[in-house]
Amino acid sequence: MIDHPAFSVEPWALRETALRLELLAQSESLFALANGHIGLRGNLDEGEPNGLPGTYLNGFHEIRPLPYAETAYGNPEAGETVLSVTDGKLMRLLVDDELFDVRYGELIEHERVLDFRAGVLRRRVHWRSPVGGQVRVASTRIVSLAQRGAAAILYEVEPVDDPIRVVVQSELIANDDGRPQAPEHADPRAAAALAAPLCAEEHYQHDRLVLLAHRAANSGLLMAAAMDHEVQGPNGTTVDVEATPDAGRVTIAADVPTGEKLRILKFLAYGWSGHRSVNSVRAQVRGSLAEARHTGFDGLCAAQREVLDGFWARADVEIEGDTELQQAVRFCLFHVLQSGARAEQRAIAAKGLTGPGYDGHAFWDTESFVLPLLTYAAPETARDALLWRHSTIEMAQERARQLGLAGATFPWRTIAGRECSGYWPASTSAFHVNADIADAVVRYHAATDDDDFGGGAGLDLLVGTARLWRSLGHHDAAGRFRIDGVTGPDEYSAVADNNVYTNLMAKRNLLAAAAASEAHPRGAHRLEVDAEEMAAWRDAAAAMVVPWDGRLRVHAQADNFTNHAVWDFAATPPDKYPLLLHAPYFDLYRKQVVKQADLVLALFACGDEFTPEEKVRDFEYYETLTVRDSSLSSCAQAIVAAETGHLDLAYDYLGEAAFVDLHDLNDNTRDGLHMASLAGCWLALVCGFGGFRDHGGRMAFAPRLPEPIGRMRFRLSFRGRCLVVDVRPREATYALEAGDAIEVAHHGDAVEVRPGDAVTRPIPAPPRRERPRQPPGREPRRRAPDRSGPAREGG
Amino acid sequence: MIDHPAFSVEPWALRETALRLELLAQSESLFALANGHIGLRGNLDEGEPNGLPGTYLNGFHEIRPLPYAETAYGNPEAGETVLSVTDGKLMRLLVDDELFDVRYGELIEHERVLDFRAGVLRRRVHWRSPVGGQVRVASTRIVSLAQRGAAAILYEVEPVDDPIRVVVQSELIANDDGRPQAPEHADPRAAAALAAPLCAEEHYQHDRLVLLAHRAANSGLLMAAAMDHEVQGPNGTTVDVEATPDAGRVTIAADVPTGEKLRILKFLAYGWSGHRSVNSVRAQVRGSLAEARHTGFDGLCAAQREVLDGFWARADVEIEGDTELQQAVRFCLFHVLQSGARAEQRAIAAKGLTGPGYDGHAFWDTESFVLPLLTYAAPETARDALLWRHSTIEMAQERARQLGLAGATFPWRTIAGRECSGYWPASTSAFHVNADIADAVVRYHAATDDDDFGGGAGLDLLVGTARLWRSLGHHDAAGRFRIDGVTGPDEYSAVADNNVYTNLMAKRNLLAAAAASEAHPRGAHRLEVDAEEMAAWRDAAAAMVVPWDGRLRVHAQADNFTNHAVWDFAATPPDKYPLLLHAPYFDLYRKQVVKQADLVLALFACGDEFTPEEKVRDFEYYETLTVRDSSLSSCAQAIVAAETGHLDLAYDYLGEAAFVDLHDLNDNTRDGLHMASLAGCWLALVCGFGGFRDHGGRMAFAPRLPEPIGRMRFRLSFRGRCLVVDVRPREATYALEAGDAIEVAHHGDAVEVRPGDAVTRPIPAPPRRERPRQPPGREPRRRAPDRSGPAREGG
Repeated sequence: MIDHPAFSVEPWALRETALRLELLAQSESLFALANGHIGLRGNLDEGEPNGLPGTYLNGFHEIRPLPYAETAYGNPEAGETVLSVTDGKLMRLLVDDELFDVRYGELIEHERVLDFRAGVLRRRVHWRSPVGGQVRVASTRIVSLAQRGAAAILYEVEPVDDPIRVVVQSELIANDDGRPQAPEHADPRAAAALAAPLCAEEHYQHDRLVLLAHRAANSGLLMAAAMDHEVQGPNGTTVDVEATPDAGRVTIAADVPTGEKLRILKFLAYGWSGHRSVNSVRAQVRGSLAEARHTGFDGLCAAQREVLDGFWARADVEIEGDTELQQAVRFCLFHVLQSGARAEQRAIAAKGLTGPGYDGHAFWDTESFVLPLLTYAAPETARDALLWRHSTIEMAQERARQLGLAGATFPWRTIAGRECSGYWPASTSAFHVNADIADAVVRYHAATDDDDFGGGAGLDLLVGTARLWRSLGHHDAAGRFRIDGVTGPDEYSAVADNNVYTNLMAKRNLLAAAAASEAHPRGAHRLEVDAEEMAAWRDAAAAMVVPWDGRLRVHAQADNFTNHAVWDFAATPPDKYPLLLHAPYFDLYRKQVVKQADLVLALFACGDEFTPEEKVRDFEYYETLTVRDSSLSSCAQAIVAAETGHLDLAYDYLGEAAFVDLHDLNDNTRDGLHMASLAGCWLALVCGFGGFRDHGGRMAFAPRLPEPIGRMRFRLSFRGRCLVVDVRPREATYALEAGDAIEVAHHGDAVEVRPGDAVTRPIPAPPRRERPRQPPGREPRRRAPDRSGPAREGG
Repeated sequence: MIDHPAFSVEPWALRETALRLELLAQSESLFALANGHIGLRGNLDEGEPNGLPGTYLNGFHEIRPLPYAETAYGNPEAGETVLSVTDGKLMRLLVDDELFDVRYGELIEHERVLDFRAGVLRRRVHWRSPVGGQVRVASTRIVSLAQRGAAAILYEVEPVDDPIRVVVQSELIANDDGRPQAPEHADPRAAAALAAPLCAEEHYQHDRLVLLAHRAANSGLLMAAAMDHEVQGPNGTTVDVEATPDAGRVTIAADVPTGEKLRILKFLAYGWSGHRSVNSVRAQVRGSLAEARHTGFDGLCAAQREVLDGFWARADVEIEGDTELQQAVRFCLFHVLQSGARAEQRAIAAKGLTGPGYDGHAFWDTESFVLPLLTYAAPETARDALLWRHSTIEMAQERARQLGLAGATFPWRTIAGRECSGYWPASTSAFHVNADIADAVVRYHAATDDDDFGGGAGLDLLVGTARLWRSLGHHDAAGRFRIDGVTGPDEYSAVADNNVYTNLMAKRNLLAAAAASEAHPRGAHRLEVDAEEMAAWRDAAAAMVVPWDGRLRVHAQADNFTNHAVWDFAATPPDKYPLLLHAPYFDLYRKQVVKQADLVLALFACGDEFTPEEKVRDFEYYETLTVRDSSLSSCAQAIVAAETGHLDLAYDYLGEAAFVDLHDLNDNTRDGLHMASLAGCWLALVCGFGGFRDHGGRMAFAPRLPEPIGRMRFRLSFRGRCLVVDVRPREATYALEAGDAIEVAHHGDAVEVRPGDAVTRPIPAPPRRERPRQPPGREPRRRAPDRSGPAREGG
C-alpha cells in the first residue's frame, strides 16, 4: 500500500514531491505513459535504480510453451507473453565524472508530475554529487497520442552554482532483463520471465540517429526502435554516436557554465509487424521518427494537449466534496485512455501498457469494464477494440471447432487471439467472455448507430457467439435451456451448472444476435443465418434457466450454490487473503465464497431481469460471501450498493476501485495498473451514483449522491450527442452540449432533453436500509472524503 | 489387439509358439515375472530386439518436478516415477562370431511358455545363423516367490548339427533407456521418461560375481544389483569378468562339440533402501545372492512350485465350457499374485511390476479391485498392502492439513505416499479413494478376524478417513449431509456434488469407523475418538444425500447429472474413442457420458443400499451412457449385469475384463498389464456368476451361470476356512475344505455348511429381461466361448 504523503492532491495531475525508493516500482506504473501502441513505464531517465524497466509495444509478444503435469485434449500448447522491448527512455548522466544516481550524493529536490491535460510526464531534480557539484535536471517525456509511432524526451541539465562538466549518454538498449524475479514472484498473477528474448536483426546509425531491429525468437515478430537527437549546448559540446546489435548510444559531452544549460531533444519511434520485412518495418520507424522531428517537441506537445482537451470535454467527471477522489477519477480516465487511444485493432490488456502483469494478456475485463467507459467517452476507441476482437474471430471459430462447439469461442486470456490459459476450469469453461464481447458490441452499436460496424464486424461477433451458446447449452426434458459445466466471473467457483450471470448474458447474446440478424438481412444472409436459427436462439433465450433458492428467496449463483457449505470466514485470518494463495481450488469451488461480484454483477449488467426487491435481497446475501480477492469486484458492488440504497457502502467500494493503484491496494501495482478497476471507478460514479443504465439502448438515470459528495457532473457521448448530467443531493440536471434532443429516464420517469434547454428533476430520498455485512475482516475500508480542496490548479 | 493364433489355449500356461515382432512389447508384459518386489519384463534374453526393456524394484523411484502452466495452492510440486533399474536379464550370445538376433538368420523354432504352476518363464529357440550354423537355446527364468531378493536364469546352448563356437556375455547394465519415446507416447496414460536416471555409487567384481550400486539422483534412493554364475561347459570353456560403473559383464567362451552343451546358471539379487548405507544395501544384496546360489536353481524352482501349489489350492477358479476363459482366469490370478506376493508393505501398482505405465503409480484400483481378490485368495498379501497404505498415513494427514481438512486424505496416484497427480479435478477431488481404502480394511478384517490389524493399523485408517469425510461434507439447512465438489470413479465427470458412489462409500466408512472404535476401545482412546465424534459420524452417515431423479426413477450419478445433455454418441465415430484423447474434459464433464462404472459400481459395492428394482432400472439407464474407456469398467458391469439377470451381457463383459491384456483390448498392454482388470476377471466370475457379496461381513451367494459356462468351481479363504463353491446350471454346492462350520446365504436363504458335509441347493431361474443397450459402437464384443478343450495338460 502506498502511503498518502508521497503524492499531493490536486485535480489535474499526479504529483510526487519526493522520491520514495521503496515505492519505485509502483510509481513506475503510476507514471507510465502510453498511447495504446507504445507504452513507457515511468522509469527514471537514468535507468537505475529501477523497480521494473519496461517498454512495450501493443501486440508484440513472444510465444512460450505451456507445460502440464498431465496432458489433456484441448489444452493450449503454447502461450503468448508480452516482451519488454528496446528501451529508448535511457538518458544516463555524468556530472564532473560522477554518475548521476539518486541513491548517492544528495537529492535536494525531486519531483515528478503526470499531467492529465498536457499528457506528459515532467521531472525536476536538484542533486548534489558525492564530490559536491550541484546540478538541476529537468525532463519532459511524451508518448504522442497524435503520432502513434512516436515518443520524445526533452532533457535539460544546468549547473546550480559552479560550472560543471556534463556527459549525457542517450541510449537505446535491447534485452535489458528487468522482469520480476521468479522466487519473489511465485504469484500466479505475475508474468513469466524470458531471458534475452530479442534476436538482433539489424542495427545502424546515421548522423545522430540509431536504429535497432530485433525479432522475437519463437513468435517471429519483427520490431524496430529508433532514436534521433537535437542538441543545444555551450560551445564545444560534442556528440558521438555508436550502434551495436543490442545497443545504440549517443554520447553528448559539454562543459556547462553557470547560467547556461545543455538541452537535448530525443525523438523516439517504434514499430513492429508480424508480416512485413525488415525493410518495411525500418521504413515505418524511420518515417515516424522523421515526422516526429519534423513536428518538433513543441508541436508534439501542442497536438497532445489538443487531443486531451477533446477527451476531457467529452469524458470528464467533476466531483465536489472529495478532492482526492476528483484527482483519482481523472487519473483513472487518463490511464484508460492511454491504454486504448491508438491501439487500433490491438488488444487493450488488463494492465494496459503499464507493466508485464498477467503476461500482457487481455481478458473479458476489457469488454465488461473498459469498453463501457470508452463507448461513452471515446467511442472510436471502443470500436477499434471490438475490431481487434473481430480480427481474431477465425481463431475463435477454430477453437470452438476444436472443443466440439459451433460458432466462435474467444480466449480467456490472449495477446494475439490464441487461448493462453493452461488452466481450463478458470478459462476455457469461462465462456461468459463471449457474451461479454457481444454485450460490448450491442452497447457500442446502440451508443453510436454505427451501422457499418453493426452489420459487419458487429454482426459477425453476435452471430458467432450466439451459435456458441446454442451449441453449448441444451433444452432439458422440461424444455428449459441449461448451460452446464461453465465458470462464471467468480473465480472461486468453477465448472458449475447454470451460472446466473452466464445464462442471462447468454440470453441477451442470443436475443441480440437474432435482432441484429433481422436488422441486417444482408449480413445475416452472408452468415447463413435463417429464420430457423433465429427462432432457435429466441427459444433458448426464452427458456433460459435462472436458479432460484425458494427457501432463502435469493438467486443461487449457479445450481446448488446455496446448498454448499459457507466458507469458514471466522477461521480465516487476514493474512490468508487472497484465498487463492492459501487454499486449494477444490475447496474454494465447493463452498459458498465469492472472489468477485458474479451474481451481483448480473444484478447490474442484466438489471432488467431482476425486480428491485430481488436486487435488495440478492445483494445483501452475496455481500456476506464476497471477499473481493479480485480488483474487478469493488466497482460492481459499488454500483449495486448504490442502486439498492446503500450509498455509504457504495462510496466505500468506489474508494477501493478508484484507489486500487494510487494506494496499491492489491500489492501488485508494481506489475502494472488495473485498467478494469480504473474504468470501474468511472462505472461506480456514473452507473453507481449517476444510476446510469443502458439496457435496451435507452439511457436511464437514477442519480443519488452519497453524503460526502456534494455534486457530480459527468458527460456521455451518445449518437453524436454530448449529454451532461449534473447531480446534486436533491436534484439532477440534464443538458445537451451537442446533438439533437433525446429522451432519457430519470428515476423511472421519461425526461425530454433538448439542445440549450437543461432539465432539472428532483431526486427521491433513498430508502433507509441497514448496512449489509461482509465476511469478517473483508469489509471495505471506510472512505473518509478528502475535503482539503485543490492544493493548486497545477500542471 | 493381439490376434489369437500367436498363443495356444491351455489351462495352466501361456504359450507362444511363434515370435511376433510386432507384438514384442505386449508379449514382454504378458511374460513378465515378478514377486511383488522384483519385476522382470519378458524381454528376450539377448536384450534386442525389444519393445520396452524393464526391470523394476517395487518402491524404487525417482522424483521429477510437476510443471504447471498456471500455479495454484496445493498443487504437488513433484511427482514420483518408477525407474527401470539395472538390467540383469541380459544373456547376449555369439554363435560362430555371429550375434544371435531373431531378426537375422532363420528362426526355425521359437517358443515361450509362462507356467502358472511352476512359476517360471521357459524359452526354446532353434536358430540358424546367417552363415549357416545352427543352435538350440533354452532358457528358464525365475523370480523367486520364496526368496524375495532373488531371481535366476538357466541358459543352455547346444549345437544342432556341427560343432559351434559360442560366446555368452551375461550382463548387468544400468541406465539402459528403454522407456517409451515421447512423440509416440503423448498418451497421458504412459509414463514420463527420464534419461540416465541412475548415478553410479559403487561397482565391484569378485570371482564370477559383479555388483553395481546406484542412486537415483533426486529421490536419493539407493539400489544394488548383483549377479553370480555357475558355468558348465566343454573343456576349454573360459570365463572373463569385468565391471564398470554402469555395466557388469561375464564373458563365457566355449567350443561346443555336437552332443554337448554350454550351461550357464545366472543368479541375480536386488535390493534398495531409502535410509540404509551403501554398505548395508550391498550386504543385503550379496546375502540374497549367496542364499540363492546356496539354494540352487533346482531348489528355487522347487520352492516356487510349493508356493504356487498352496496358492492354487486356495485361489483357483475352475471353469468348464470355455477353455480360453479357464486359461485367462489363471493368467489373471497368477499375475495378480505376482504383483503383490512379496510386496511386503510396498504398493501394488496399477501395472504391478510389468511395465512403466502410469509412472508405476498405485491408485484406488488396488483397494477396490485387487484387494478383494487377495483378501479371499491370499489374505496375508492383502494385509501387507493395507499396511503399506498405513505406512503413508502421516503424509495423508499432512495432505489433509494442507487442504484444510481433518483426518487423512490418501493420494490419488503414488509410489511412496505423496500425491503425484498434477491435475486436481481428477485426483485431489477424487476423495473416494479414502473410502475405498476403508472398505478394503473392513473386508480384510471381516474375512480374517485379524484383531491386531483391526485395532491397530486398520483402526487408524478407518478413523483417519472418517474424519476426512466428516470435515469434507456438511449438513445443509435441511439437515442432509452433503459432500460437494468431488469426483467419483467416472473420470468423465468431475467436481460434482453428491456423487452417489462417493456418498455411499463415505457412509460405510463413517459407520465402520464408529463400529471399529466401539469394538476397539483402547485403539479409539489412543486416537482420541470419543462418543461425540462417533455420534457425529453416525449422524452424517444417516443423513447422507443420495441423488434420485424422480422423473426418470433412477439414481443420478451426482446432483444434476441426469439434467445434463446426453453425449452425442451418434456423432461419435469409433476412432474417437477413448473420448479423453479426442474431447476436452470440460465437455465430457458436463454431459451424460460415463467413462467407467460409477453409479453401477455403487450398485455392486454398496448393493445393500439399493432395492433389486432400483438396480435393474439404474443399470439399464447407465448402460446407455457408459463407454468403457477405462479397463476398470467391464468387471463392474459384468457383476451388476449378472445380478440383474443379464447373464449373456455379463459374460461378454467378463470377456473384456479377462482378455484386456491377452487380447490387448486397450492398445496399451505394452506399458504393462492392467492389474485391476485382471483381478476384475476374478470379481466378474466370483461376484458376478457366483453372486458373492460380503456386505456386513456375511458371505452371501447368488450363483447363476451364463449358458456357455457349464460349471464353475471357486474357493474363498474366510476366517481360517477354505470354502469351495461349485456352481452348475441348476444347482450349487457349498463345501468346506478347511475350517469350522459357517452359515452362508444362497439366493437369500441361509445355508449351514459343515466340514465334510457339502450342501447343494437349486438355483432359481433367471428373470427374462431385454438386453440393455449401450452407446452405439460401444457394445461389448460378443464372447464366443472356446470349447476346443485343453490343448494339452501342458506346462
